[in-house]
Amino acid sequence: MYFASDNAGPAHPSVLNAMIAANQGYAMGYGADPIMASVRTKIRDLFEAPEACVYLVATGTAANSILLGTMANPWDTVFCTAMAHINEDECNAPEFYMGGAKLTLVPDDKARMTPEELRAAIGKEQSRGVHGPQRGPVSITQVTEKGTVYSLDQIRAITAVARDFGLKTHLDGARFTNALVALDCSPAEMTWKAGIDTVSFGGTKNGLLGVEACVIFDPALAWEFELRRKRGGHLFSKHRYLSAQMDAYLTDGLWLDMARAANARTAQLANGMRSHAATEMLYPVEANIIFFRATRAEHQRLKQGGAIYYVMDGDETQGDPAEPLTGRLVCDWSMTAEGVDQFLTVLRG
Amino acid sequence: MYFASDNAGPAHPSVLNAMIAANQGYAMGYGADPIMASVRTKIRDLFEAPEACVYLVATGTAANSILLGTMANPWDTVFCTAMAHINEDECNAPEFYMGGAKLTLVPDDKARMTPEELRAAIGKEQSRGVHGPQRGPVSITQVTEKGTVYSLDQIRAITAVARDFGLKTHLDGARFTNALVALDCSPAEMTWKAGIDTVSFGGTKNGLLGVEACVIFDPALAWEFELRRKRGGHLFSKHRYLSAQMDAYLTDGLWLDMARAANARTAQLANGMRSHAATEMLYPVEANIIFFRATRAEHQRLKQGGAIYYVMDGDETQGDPAEPLTGRLVCDWSMTAEGVDQFLTVLRG
Amino acid sequence: MYFASDNAGPAHPSVLNAMIAANQGYAMGYGADPIMASVRTKIRDLFEAPEACVYLVATGTAANSILLGTMANPWDTVFCTAMAHINEDECNAPEFYMGGAKLTLVPDDKARMTPEELRAAIGKEQSRGVHGPQRGPVSITQVTEKGTVYSLDQIRAITAVARDFGLKTHLDGARFTNALVALDCSPAEMTWKAGIDTVSFGGTKNGLLGVEACVIFDPALAWEFELRRKRGGHLFSKHRYLSAQMDAYLTDGLWLDMARAANARTAQLANGMRSHAATEMLYPVEANIIFFRATRAEHQRLKQGGAIYYVMDGDETQGDPAEPLTGRLVCDWSMTAEGVDQFLTVLRG
Amino acid sequence: MYFASDNAGPAHPSVLNAMIAANQGYAMGYGADPIMASVRTKIRDLFEAPEACVYLVATGTAANSILLGTMANPWDTVFCTAMAHINEDECNAPEFYMGGAKLTLVPDDKARMTPEELRAAIGKEQSRGVHGPQRGPVSITQVTEKGTVYSLDQIRAITAVARDFGLKTHLDGARFTNALVALDCSPAEMTWKAGIDTVSFGGTKNGLLGVEACVIFDPALAWEFELRRKRGGHLFSKHRYLSAQMDAYLTDGLWLDMARAANARTAQLANGMRSHAATEMLYPVEANIIFFRATRAEHQRLKQGGAIYYVMDGDETQGDPAEPLTGRLVCDWSMTAEGVDQFLTVLRG
Repeated sequence: MYFASDNAGPAHPSVLNAMIAANQGYAMGYGADPIMASVRTKIRDLFEAPEACVYLVATGTAANSILLGTMANPWDTVFCTAMAHINEDECNAPEFYMGGAKLTLVPDDKARMTPEELRAAIGKEQSRGVHGPQRGPVSITQVTEKGTVYSLDQIRAITAVARDFGLKTHLDGARFTNALVALDCSPAEMTWKAGIDTVSFGGTKNGLLGVEACVIFDPALAWEFELRRKRGGHLFSKHRYLSAQMDAYLTDGLWLDMARAANARTAQLANGMRSHAATEMLYPVEANIIFFRATRAEHQRLKQGGAIYYVMDGDETQGDPAEPLTGRLVCDWSMTAEGVDQFLTVLRG
Repeated sequence: MYFASDNAGPAHPSVLNAMIAANQGYAMGYGADPIMASVRTKIRDLFEAPEACVYLVATGTAANSILLGTMANPWDTVFCTAMAHINEDECNAPEFYMGGAKLTLVPDDKARMTPEELRAAIGKEQSRGVHGPQRGPVSITQVTEKGTVYSLDQIRAITAVARDFGLKTHLDGARFTNALVALDCSPAEMTWKAGIDTVSFGGTKNGLLGVEACVIFDPALAWEFELRRKRGGHLFSKHRYLSAQMDAYLTDGLWLDMARAANARTAQLANGMRSHAATEMLYPVEANIIFFRATRAEHQRLKQGGAIYYVMDGDETQGDPAEPLTGRLVCDWSMTAEGVDQFLTVLRG
Repeated sequence: MYFASDNAGPAHPSVLNAMIAANQGYAMGYGADPIMASVRTKIRDLFEAPEACVYLVATGTAANSILLGTMANPWDTVFCTAMAHINEDECNAPEFYMGGAKLTLVPDDKARMTPEELRAAIGKEQSRGVHGPQRGPVSITQVTEKGTVYSLDQIRAITAVARDFGLKTHLDGARFTNALVALDCSPAEMTWKAGIDTVSFGGTKNGLLGVEACVIFDPALAWEFELRRKRGGHLFSKHRYLSAQMDAYLTDGLWLDMARAANARTAQLANGMRSHAATEMLYPVEANIIFFRATRAEHQRLKQGGAIYYVMDGDETQGDPAEPLTGRLVCDWSMTAEGVDQFLTVLRG
Repeated sequence: MYFASDNAGPAHPSVLNAMIAANQGYAMGYGADPIMASVRTKIRDLFEAPEACVYLVATGTAANSILLGTMANPWDTVFCTAMAHINEDECNAPEFYMGGAKLTLVPDDKARMTPEELRAAIGKEQSRGVHGPQRGPVSITQVTEKGTVYSLDQIRAITAVARDFGLKTHLDGARFTNALVALDCSPAEMTWKAGIDTVSFGGTKNGLLGVEACVIFDPALAWEFELRRKRGGHLFSKHRYLSAQMDAYLTDGLWLDMARAANARTAQLANGMRSHAATEMLYPVEANIIFFRATRAEHQRLKQGGAIYYVMDGDETQGDPAEPLTGRLVCDWSMTAEGVDQFLTVLRG
């Protein structure tokens, strides 16, 4: 009953098998390994982007920060939501990699940036010439940090606003595949066909040990990205072990299967919870994350029953049993239907 | 016959097995996994340093840069040799992580910084108050970039000079274990007992997939290191896969066995080459790296015979066959005696 | 009728005379000039802070940024209001000098940060350990960017919240003296006695050519400030010309006289405007800045009548004559009563 | 008898008069003042560069650092000599403004970088792809830090090497005018006609209070320079007082007259010293700086006789009277022939 994070689950056995297969003899390092060539081709094919630059790093913070560093100047401000991972959960890594640029927080609707608010926020910046921050790229998260998913129309509306101001758009896809299967669309449709310029294409939260692909649709940015990756200490000498993970991920639809499993378990969980009158969903459940309200007493029952998850806004162990508190549940690829049922059973008391 | 780099060889099967063993169920992330607790204990025990802070990162550049960032101020200058990895091979990562500090290059003797030159170099800095760079930490590499090894006395002499000026010392131990078995001493003797304050304790070049431990003997630096690691994007969510590598490494002396194997093959290689009159060793061969001079014709024969290694100072494929060129040979743990013999056979023509 | 900025007026003749007096023979540079010793003594006396560190720089952005760089770590977030000069008007200079720290925007009441909102904002940060930004210093502006003035109680309430969390407080006093004479208190009362740790003590907007003093009450920060000032290129070789400005400023109450004159003209202006029914004050007029609403037609009449000031939220030259637009008026020390009367005459039509 | 630095002398009275003349009424700030328009025209005319971008800052460190920040990427290395002001005397300001780039020290001949050594130094960098620092701009100082002057041929030879590698060249002209009158050439000849791309055109050491012009021959860099200047806190609100200084400097040949006077006094000093057998010149005396060797006893006599200057390599107040020590003498525009004679009289004993 582990619902604390999709970061905490195991890697898929196929991925480890691929690493073992890669562990034969010598291989060129630093991305020149033959498996990386395969990964590059697969991602270009999947994204229908034969010119795209594809790089691997090992953490989502690295992917986001190096991409934003490549897209933004130090005097820019990046437009994102308040709950964006780049704002809340990266300990100023984007600011570090951008050389001191800043973030402008754009109001959201259910964790999705709205085009109207984005337009207003961009409009307010850069009204004072050299004195204020300059307008930098827009960054959105898909699946959002609250578990909602931008529709293709919503992405297109955001990138259209950015384009009106000549700005580029980054997609933080730590849960890219969970969104993709939720929308049932193609990677190209969810990215460059919708106006996205660069993608953090996550694997770690969806069954890898620790690999994210950075996909850049404009090849002109490639060399700068490579220098920034190296300068950040994120270029791996024994790169084949990153390549092998991503290669296995993209083989035989494993990535899609794992995301579908995670989303399905989450839907099962949400359905069960909804039938339990006392809980309230804070956001539409569209991928593999649930935010729910329940009383302290219910949280205590769940925790004592073995459920592991975060309570976000208070201490569930002491206080008024009737006070409502927010819990977050995340399903990873390895969550079982039995685990979900067990949770629901405990919830129902 | 792969002698290009110890970065290019496979990981030890035990290491991959440990990763598979770690891949069961859920685990706390970000270093809170139980295997990391085991790693911490093992390293503290090995270093006889019960208070030492121990952190894992995935690349040597990250280890060096985050440690130096934690030790140096942006207005400092770090003392190292010209061929130091931090100077030549990290694309300004140390300067990035230190916020714009610089490096002062100290002359060397066979790639080893000498205490006299260090004293002179430190003396010359900070003679102009606020106007010049301030004196920062000293960083030495063990095994050096040219394959030589500092004796314990030599390390003590370096750190004594640093201490005279109130400066700290970092040891870039990308090939820590190769030096340790060469000196046949303990980790404590080669580090804090010799005056070293922080260590990049490498694993990647010696049979891991990609893990380096950062060992900090002064616990007061721990929290800042943790923030700098996170801010650099080097804190792994699924940390257990780093822990498992390092844990296997330190189990049953695997780390020592692999380094001994690499050094032994290198000694075999050097002995064989010395008996071939035409080659010249540029540095004492003390660990697992050889720099040698041979004619272009000899390099061509070796390469055509299947040897893979770097020629450092020219193009071996064209030019005067009699011109001497420098080659670099590195043995990793997986090099076989047969591979070495094969190289020597080709060399002898 | 120049009301665009207190940055645009002339320097006081006494200040230039002091510079001429300082221009005799040779003088030690870089702050070692004897006039700087006099400045240091005067500021320490005025602030009743015999241990305070006093440094001069030439721009307000430099003063704020170097002080914040000295107070904050790169992984911190600084608490300020959305309209803070450090947020809106310094092109990311604070982020640059802090090495990539960020700003958290705290809601305000009439441009004054409120202690309740500050407490809430601080409370929300640093709830996720190493993952999020760490809590950094609080920075408030006195006079605020909208012309309001914190009372001593209001300052104390802010610094009390900061102290509850162990945080330091910076006061951006670009218009320090305008606030001081408005409150009719002492520099000590408005700063360290109210819990302020560092001050940008502005002179440029109040009759100097370009000098701001940085006052740091904790001497432990002095050396780091000096290094950061030099590293920013803000240490002047011919420092005596900065010293002479500040020395004249603090002689015979010139600084107070100029601020009183500016505030008095502003009060005269506000009173006259209030008697003109059609204009509306957006904020209490407490120092030397007025934000007012008037119709486009009125703005046009004022501008055509020779008034020079900024219209903040639209183009006054074209559009619906009845549309209300916001104007900003600032009086400097050299504004005359006649100039104000002339403005009011034009306003009345 | 003040020979410590040309930073320590007074400003020319005409310069202060120009500041007083500028101190009338209101003026647009931030470089939009009409005097700046005059300065821009004058510098473009003098440099025969109608498209050149011209900006003013107040310190030489700011001029050098913002220009290098505009020219170099954070992953670059800048080529300069070991004694370059940017290496020795700016407390890592260039590294700060360049976002963590580094400096590669090129051997010199009498403080002048030689084209052969520059070619060798550039050749050695960027030989390892993404792993090492990338080749950045070349920076030379004219007058050099040791008082020698590059001939036009020598400048052309340096910039030709840079151009061979596609690199730009910066000229640190803190003593630009002293070199110009020494060479008796035009600003254009000493800069863009000789291949220089950007110039720190100093005024502070030659009779201004504190103004340096940054001259950029490629207008494409202008906007980035402006943003970097603002972000560094070096954009002055009351800019007219900088403009007025530079405008007076360039009026009626004042700049040339002052530099000629300084050089003439230095020549007088050197001639007198050469006739005194016991002193030795360490470098050709070509502008307004002298490095000389004399015994400790002689230094003591000079200092006791009232001469003020730096002894560079030891304590002249105690030790063997016969030990030779190095002194540095600098003449500024205000040095008199009598002051020089007085020094020589004391020297002769």
